Amino acid sequence: MARIYNFSAGPAVLPVEALEAARDEMLDYNGSGMSVMEMSHRGKVYAAIHEEAKQNIRDLMGLTDDYEVIFVQGGASLQFAMIPMNFLGEGKVADYVDSGNWGAQAIKQARLIGQVNIVADCNKDIPTRMPREGECKWTPGAAYAHITSNETISGAQWKTLPKTEAPLVADMSSDILSRPFDIKDFAMVYAGAQKNLGTAGMALVVIRKDFAETGSKALPTMLKYSTFIEKDSLYNTPPCFSIYMLMQTTRWLKKFGLENIYKQNVEKAAKLYAAIDASAFYRGTAVKEFRSDMNVTFRLPTEELEATFCAEAKKVGLEGLKGHRSVGGIRASIYNAFPPAGVDALVAFMADFERKFG
Amino acid sequence: MARIYNFSAGPAVLPVEALEAARDEMLDYNGSGMSVMEMSHRGKVYAAIHEEAKQNIRDLMGLTDDYEVIFVQGGASLQFAMIPMNFLGEGKVADYVDSGNWGAQAIKQARLIGQVNIVADCNKDIPTRMPREGECKWTPGAAYAHITSNETISGAQWKTLPKTEAPLVADMSSDILSRPFDIKDFAMVYAGAQKNLGTAGMALVVIRKDFAETGSKALPTMLKYSTFIEKDSLYNTPPCFSIYMLMQTTRWLKKFGLENIYKQNVEKAAKLYAAIDASAFYRGTAVKEFRSDMNVTFRLPTEELEATFCAEAKKVGLEGLKGHRSVGGIRASIYNAFPPAGVDALVAFMADFERKFG
Repeated sequence: MARIYNFSAGPAVLPVEALEAARDEMLDYNGSGMSVMEMSHRGKVYAAIHEEAKQNIRDLMGLTDDYEVIFVQGGASLQFAMIPMNFLGEGKVADYVDSGNWGAQAIKQARLIGQVNIVADCNKDIPTRMPREGECKWTPGAAYAHITSNETISGAQWKTLPKTEAPLVADMSSDILSRPFDIKDFAMVYAGAQKNLGTAGMALVVIRKDFAETGSKALPTMLKYSTFIEKDSLYNTPPCFSIYMLMQTTRWLKKFGLENIYKQNVEKAAKLYAAIDASAFYRGTAVKEFRSDMNVTFRLPTEELEATFCAEAKKVGLEGLKGHRSVGGIRASIYNAFPPAGVDALVAFMADFERKFG
Repeated sequence: MARIYNFSAGPAVLPVEALEAARDEMLDYNGSGMSVMEMSHRGKVYAAIHEEAKQNIRDLMGLTDDYEVIFVQGGASLQFAMIPMNFLGEGKVADYVDSGNWGAQAIKQARLIGQVNIVADCNKDIPTRMPREGECKWTPGAAYAHITSNETISGAQWKTLPKTEAPLVADMSSDILSRPFDIKDFAMVYAGAQKNLGTAGMALVVIRKDFAETGSKALPTMLKYSTFIEKDSLYNTPPCFSIYMLMQTTRWLKKFGLENIYKQNVEKAAKLYAAIDASAFYRGTAVKEFRSDMNVTFRLPTEELEATFCAEAKKVGLEGLKGHRSVGGIRASIYNAFPPAGVDALVAFMADFERKFG
């Protein structure tokens, strides 16, 4: 068995320790004689997994009692709809930042439900970026304000997260728990699990209880945040194995330490950006002050060279480097679990490739 | 490692072969150098898993081209809402059979959306049962008719599935692919995956294209069946690992054969019902002609004896026998992957228990 260096944007590389635990416990979890996939979600064995998953999130984010940790199927994409369904009733307006593909997706779903105000639009800016300080024109009395903390496709990231008067909601799918942040500035943060939290098939939602309580009561049971809070994400059968993988991944992260992973993430990204900046052959696609620590995006002189770059990289075990189909170029996604040695390998490969093809 | 006999109602026992494959491929799927949980859902390696999962369902159900196989997060519980959201617009009426807890759950969600007509109500009947032939008063011109093929909690099962003029929709969560059935009688069948199809975290939906096309266009993208059909369940990141487990489980089932598993299921259930009927100590809770082959429910003379029964059974490796908290009693769930030897073990235990406590 040879593991590759996996630069995939998501689903993405997971901690080897988490995968090894999943492997070793596959037919018999903790002496129960069952796989995690086979056990009742109402039983004691699963309950301990559910509790640890929530507690790890509470510990890593430093949550106070006024925040709830819930697990919702459907990924971030269903959250794009659930947020306005719950909080954007008639006569209300919600502020949205359009910072790229994912910000725009959230806006598209919100517009199907209610009135949306775009407070800043840098979606089409080249090089890509996030709004600058003072650029967002927040609406007084907005039902909520929505941002995307990291645009996975373009590779732009809020470096200083904004503070808003309205309840602030953040899609943190691609940089959650990659750095410390102050949850007190947010009414809700959410993230698809398949980048820094485990496996695809659910979203982690951290929501302040008093904000959740303002949600519409007239929705189907499975689309109300209040259901998940009241029933501890166990109204129906939860995605038990995804929650188990989140537990394993966050257990690993707690051991590593959030400050340590942040430091390592900054170092990994800095090495790649240094390699890009040291060469006229490679060209970064994000404004420097908004460069993402998670998704490092760059171009080569031609699309043909980019295709060759990906093909040659694959030959030496560096995979998943092709940029998103909507923008092209190269994207190196280097989430928490991506090893520093893989970044070194890519930096060496880039130098080698430039020598051969530059 | 000692595997128990797992009578859990869901999540439930899976084929050992499927779990062993998941274990062996956990860190390196098929020489890709990645776990299934780590790979792009747009890549070739995952695409082959997605295709086989769909094809196995097509083969096992004998689907013609007018039916689509899609994978939707949220389990059957989200389907309870999506069905009326898509198909029960203003001025329409939908027929529902109230046959027990799950039928009633579907009805509750439909009533939040539109007009519901209860065509038969045997929810509270004791002993439990399904509607008899001719009992359902179907509404001419109904948007659709909804049934629950097997009531997991009470242990009643439709033995002859009905035919309706209106498009027939069936929740088959707890008996899908346990027996052959004619898909042509249905506009849509769906099932939470965590019983006969793999792991919790999604619903399998098989839907006739012309029926799907009648769905509302005004819904959020993630709540329209048309999205999943048009995008091949890849509009957003699908629950890749759940789909992989469905692929493994249905691969096992194809090897076993649907007719063979049906024969084995009938035999397993018959042995348990024979043990119940041979004794005055045990009392079946379903009308004989509607006894479920998947969930065998029975009572003992007292609730105390039922608690002792479960505790003693657990000591000899027979677990998950406690009836649902809403009805009490004993429930032995014996889905496709439950081994016949486990049924023999339970029958022997029942005789032994009666000798000691009867």
